[in-house]
Parts: sequence; structure tokens; C-alpha cells
Amino acid sequence: MKSFRVFPVTSLLDSDFYKFTMGQFVFLNFPNVEVEFELINRSRAPLAYHIREADLRATLTALRTLRLTQSELSYLRGLRNGEGPLFREEYLDFLSGLSLPRYTLKRDGDTYRLSCRGPWPLVMMWEIPALATVNELYYRGLCEGRQDECITVGDKLLREKIALLRTVPNLSFSDFGTRRRYSRAWQGHVLETLVREIPSQLQGTSNVMYAMRYGLRPIGTSAHELPMVLAALAFAKNTPGVSDTGVLESVHQYIFEHWFELYGDSLSIALTDTFGSDFFFRTAPRWIAEQWRGTRQDSGNPFRYGEEAIRWYERHGIDPSKKVVVWSDQLDVALMITILEQFYGRIGVGFGIGTNLTNDCGVKAISLVMKAMRANGHDTVKLSDNRAKATGPQNTVDRYSAAAGYVSTLYEECRS
Amino acid sequence: MKSFRVFPVTSLLDSDFYKFTMGQFVFLNFPNVEVEFELINRSRAPLAYHIREADLRATLTALRTLRLTQSELSYLRGLRNGEGPLFREEYLDFLSGLSLPRYTLKRDGDTYRLSCRGPWPLVMMWEIPALATVNELYYRGLCEGRQDECITVGDKLLREKIALLRTVPNLSFSDFGTRRRYSRAWQGHVLETLVREIPSQLQGTSNVMYAMRYGLRPIGTSAHELPMVLAALAFAKNTPGVSDTGVLESVHQYIFEHWFELYGDSLSIALTDTFGSDFFFRTAPRWIAEQWRGTRQDSGNPFRYGEEAIRWYERHGIDPSKKVVVWSDQLDVALMITILEQFYGRIGVGFGIGTNLTNDCGVKAISLVMKAMRANGHDTVKLSDNRAKATGPQNTVDRYSAAAGYVSTLYEECRS
Repeated sequence: MKSFRVFPVTSLLDSDFYKFTMGQFVFLNFPNVEVEFELINRSRAPLAYHIREADLRATLTALRTLRLTQSELSYLRGLRNGEGPLFREEYLDFLSGLSLPRYTLKRDGDTYRLSCRGPWPLVMMWEIPALATVNELYYRGLCEGRQDECITVGDKLLREKIALLRTVPNLSFSDFGTRRRYSRAWQGHVLETLVREIPSQLQGTSNVMYAMRYGLRPIGTSAHELPMVLAALAFAKNTPGVSDTGVLESVHQYIFEHWFELYGDSLSIALTDTFGSDFFFRTAPRWIAEQWRGTRQDSGNPFRYGEEAIRWYERHGIDPSKKVVVWSDQLDVALMITILEQFYGRIGVGFGIGTNLTNDCGVKAISLVMKAMRANGHDTVKLSDNRAKATGPQNTVDRYSAAAGYVSTLYEECRS
Repeated sequence: MKSFRVFPVTSLLDSDFYKFTMGQFVFLNFPNVEVEFELINRSRAPLAYHIREADLRATLTALRTLRLTQSELSYLRGLRNGEGPLFREEYLDFLSGLSLPRYTLKRDGDTYRLSCRGPWPLVMMWEIPALATVNELYYRGLCEGRQDECITVGDKLLREKIALLRTVPNLSFSDFGTRRRYSRAWQGHVLETLVREIPSQLQGTSNVMYAMRYGLRPIGTSAHELPMVLAALAFAKNTPGVSDTGVLESVHQYIFEHWFELYGDSLSIALTDTFGSDFFFRTAPRWIAEQWRGTRQDSGNPFRYGEEAIRWYERHGIDPSKKVVVWSDQLDVALMITILEQFYGRIGVGFGIGTNLTNDCGVKAISLVMKAMRANGHDTVKLSDNRAKATGPQNTVDRYSAAAGYVSTLYEECRS
């Protein structure tokens, strides 16, 4: 068992909750779309200096042997959404047979290219295990010989965060840090510590395995891959008489309508920045503002975003204090406190804190993502509210920018 | 967290699966019957020599703070029985609010009296946590200063058992050892070892917490408390024209009919020895033999029992090789092998091994049980196929014996 313990990922539930809720949405509506996911090394970390190719390959290949256990399936089956089950038996059947599909790994200078292509509901499950694996192996290499020191620093910083959080008891947050964690063991330690020290402030975790293990609420909204893939497919169809702007609007419309139909109120937190949040707030109709519980801020200026959201609700005659914004971009405790101070009482304030919670052990955090880059062969685009986070070929990005009336000039290197 | 770790029981799922399946049966059919459970120290172990009263009281009281977590409830909700859920929402609601009720503890010479009285679905949940707690505290006292030695011995014996089990690959078994375990940690270690070493021979565990944790199948049938309590209630009604024998037959009839109605095939293993297995095999009608998957042997001579079961099926024109006997009385590996040799191919062979698996660390095992002694104030009786296991006041035992035509003269001290 010992050698197994060192694997960065040992369960298919050791992933983000939204991969399963999105997974079901995709499984029910787009089971046959072929999608290609690729690792993007945003902070250009020298991955290959710290991870041997053979180790990375062996570890990723070992992940392909994972299956959901009967207990894990029972746990998923037992999750509720309102009065009914969250997951349908047909999706649970799919999950019961799930194993991670083939991947392609190539060394490229001082980094790696990692990608996988196949049916969307299947390949999308690689994202979080792949990121968590590359991260943990990277930090294992980087911190070789001083692991204990890193853990000591991490513990000290964690204690400081907890002390600071205790001073703001009405600040509650969720752990969104699986993909960028220092290690699996470290995330477990952080969560155990938070459960013990500030249980009423920890709302839950996006990590389904740890949610199950520690009795926490699994938390998640949805991700850019939904609008990215659907927009690529919609542009490919090239419907006459529909403007590019109309295409993007209809993609939003489709997602917000069908997601709500599937999940109802409890998962209705809209991710707004795929084509720029300005576009969303300018074009999203009143019924979304009314029906959906809130929105998620994942890029750009968090303060400006909150004000935009409030204005959007007010423009539609809706009381923003009944709605919520979930901030999830590059948070740390100080930023959460500042955001809470600015918005407390004006709009509901939620937080999903990632890297700074699960990878703050005295070494620089890196910013890896794994994105859906092509759908049925067509390039996808994400604009986001920070040009540094944009993905897609330049000409396609330009087309989407024009369609969305994208004007953000913010370019801020991703800290994490 | 450290001080918490030493508690013998830290989860309400750290109990036998059948407490939940019986619990639901009782909750749906007899929610208001007042039952009194009592600890019975069958092997007259000097509990009070090794457990300080204050420690026992503090530990039992701490158990009353336990609640099922959201994860545990989701896991239970997700368990299936055939195509549908195993547990109904109304029972899950009951469980979500469950805490162990008050208990009474009194020192009595060198032992303790422990009892609890209240609504049946509630008080019945004390049985396994109470037994596991008293056991662990007893062994902690008994082995003080030589815990490491006990673990070393236990590990050596466990390795020997595994080596022996490997020689009989068609022998499979379940762990039934929660109530008599040396310690919570030790049972976990035993299960982890079996999962790693002989996964195909370990069918599952009766322990729901460990089943959830290790992805094992939770295993359970039903216990004596069902016929004991129902017989006490039936005798109390004193229906004119119904003989005592008729009362016992109708109790069996009621249970086998309604249990099957609730759970169907998957949990249809009949416990036969409450009023003596001779009585069961003499009186149980053909439809039980046909409908139920098998029976469980829990006392008396295991070889004689297997032959009786085969004769019962043959008498009713049913092929015994399509049926199963689950042996669960005082098993060790050698006995399992001998039983398998005698019955292999003649009737399905299942095993639930307890004490010898989870409490074999070089110190003598003790034999504690916690039984339903009174129902709505009326004494209950268990005869069993071993007079040493009988419970109830002598005059009531005599009445049941006469009613059941009980002739067993076996009196064998309970090793465990």
C-alpha cells in the first residue's frame, strides 16, 4: 500500500464537483461531441526541469486504472438536489464504467505538452486529476530535500490565515484548490485543520473525495468549457441571418435555460466571463437575473465586477441583496476581507479560494490550466476579463472579441 | 483532533449494517414499541477490573454527541436494493436527527450493568457502539503497557490466517467483527490488510463505516431482536384459541413475509435459531424455503445445522445447491475450511467471521452481547441452539421451550 500512497491522485472522486454536474449535463445533451483538452502552462513553469518524463507518464498511466468504488457511487447516488437525486441512474451507470481515456504527452523544451481527445463526457474528466498530478510532481521535484521545511512554512501560513479569518466570523468560503494543490496530503491536512478550527466558516470543498471523507458539502458551479464548446459548435453551424453577437447570446441562453431545467435553483450560479463579463451583463436578459441565484467572478477586477453585478440586478429591478456573487479568482484572505467589506449587505458574498489555500508553502505557485481547445475540430475561445487568461487562436479570439464588443484592456499575469 | 482519535467509536455508521436494515423495518412497523436493551456479560469478564467507571461513562456519554454527517447520509441514501433505494426518505430523515439516547450504567461487583430503554428504532442503535466501546476499553486496560506486543501478535496471527485462506481460494467470507473488536484501529488495519492481500475472498464487512471507507460491500442479515420482541408482544396479547406454538409460528411468518416484502431477495437470509433451529426447520413452510435465498447458522453444531438445512430444502423439493447457508458462529479459518469441505457443491456456503478476525491478538476474547430483554414491559426470550446462549427468565424460557418443542441439550460456553 505504501507505494500507492505516493500517487498524487488515488480516486476518481478526487476531482472538482462541477466536473460531475457539468459531466451529467454534457452526457445528457452532447455525449458525442469530440473535444480536445490541452494543458496550458500559463506561468511558463519549467515543468520538465522538475518532473522526469518517465515519472509523469507512469503516474498519468496509473491514473487510468482508477475506477469509482461502490462506496463512491453510493455516495454520488445519494446526493440530493432539492427533493430528488442530483445524478440520474444513466449518468451513474456511465460513471460506474468510467476510466480516464488515453492521453498524449510530449516533452517540449523545458515543459510538457499534455492533451487528450475523445467524447466530451469522457475526456473532460482528465482536467482535475491531470492538473493535480502535474502540480504535485512539480512541487515534489522543486522541493526535494526540503519537503519538511515547506510543510512547516505552509502550516505557519495556514495558522496565520485561520487567525485572520477568525476575526471576520461572517466571512465564509469554500475550498476550490484541488487543481493547484501542493499535494494531495497537504490539501487533506488543510481541510482537516479548517474543519477543526473554523468549521462554521468553511462552507464546503469542491473536492468530492474530501467532501465525502470529511462530511463537507461538495461545492461547485460550472466552468468555461460549456460556453466555449457550445460557441465553437454554434459558429461552425454558420446559421444564415444570425450575427456573431447573436451566436454568443444564444449560447448563453441555451446554457442558462437548460442548466436551470436540469438542476434548478441550487446550482444556478452563472459563470459570466467566458466572453467577457461586460458582454454578459449587457446582454443577459432579466429572467436570468431573476431566476438564477447569482454569478461567479473568475477574472478581472473583483471590485469592479461586484459593482457591475449590482448594477445589472438594479437595472432589472431586482434587489441585489437577495442575490450572490461567488468570487473565485486569485483570492487570499486579505482580498476576501476587502471584498466582503465593500459588498457586505449590498449583495450576497461567497468565496471559492484555491491556490492560496492549498498551495502556499513558501514556494512560488504556478498557473496551469487544462482547457477544451477544440470541439469537433473547431477552435474554441475564452476571452475572460483578463487578456492574460484568454485562450484560442488570435483570429478566432478577434472574431469573438468583435462579437462580444470586448473592450477589456486588463492584462495581468496570473499569479496562480 | 488527537484526543478524539482515541474514542472507540467516532461515527454512527461504525455499527453493523443490519442495525440499519432492521432499524428501517422497525421504524416502519413498530416505531412506538418500548424496548429495553441490556448488556450481558456471557463470559463473566471482570470488566470493572480493567475499565474505570468514570472512563466508561465519559466515553459512552461522548457517543451521544455523534450525528450522521451529510456524507454518511448521502452514502446511505445512495445504497441500492435491486433497482430502487434501500432506505426510504422517511427513515433517512429519522437517521439524520438520530443521536444515541440516554443509558443507565451501574457498577455491579467486578462488572457493569448497562441498559437503555425507549422507542425501539432509537434504543436498538446502542447495541454495536456500546459493545465496541466496552470491548475496546476493556482491552486497553487489560493490555496496558503491552499494546505493541498485542499488535505484533495480532499481525502475526493475521498473516497466518491470510496464508491459510490463500490455499482455499474458493472460500469467501465477510467481516462480522465490529462488536467484539480489539479496537477500532485494529479492525481498520485488519480490513485494509485483507483488501490488499485477498480482495477476491473478502466479500464485504458488516461495518458500514468501514464499508464506506474501503469501498466494500456492506453485509448483513437480521438479528434475534426481531423475533424476540415480536414474540413477547404476541404472547402478551394472549389471543384466545392460539396455542403457544401457533404464536411462535405466526411470529416467524410475520417476519419472513414482511421483511421480504420490504427488501426482496437481496436480504433474504433467515436467522433460524431464535426459538431453536429445529423448530424453524420443522415448521417453516415451503414458501420460505423457496422464496428466501438462505438461512444463517448462529449457534449449535455447524455441521449438523448444514445437514438440517439441506434436508429441509430436499423435503420441500428444492435444490439445496441453489440456496445458501451463512455460518456466523464462533468461526475461525480452520472451521470455515472444514465447513466448506463438508458442504461445497451441496449448498451455497457463506461465512461471517467475527471475533477470531478482529480480536485475536494473543489475549482471551470475551463474550459480551447486548440484547432486547423487554418489549412494552414483557420479557423476551431467545433459546438458540446452545443453552449457554439462551436469554430470558427461566419460567418464560420454559414456556417458549415447550411451545417450540425445544430439545437441544447442547451447552457450550461461548468462546466469543
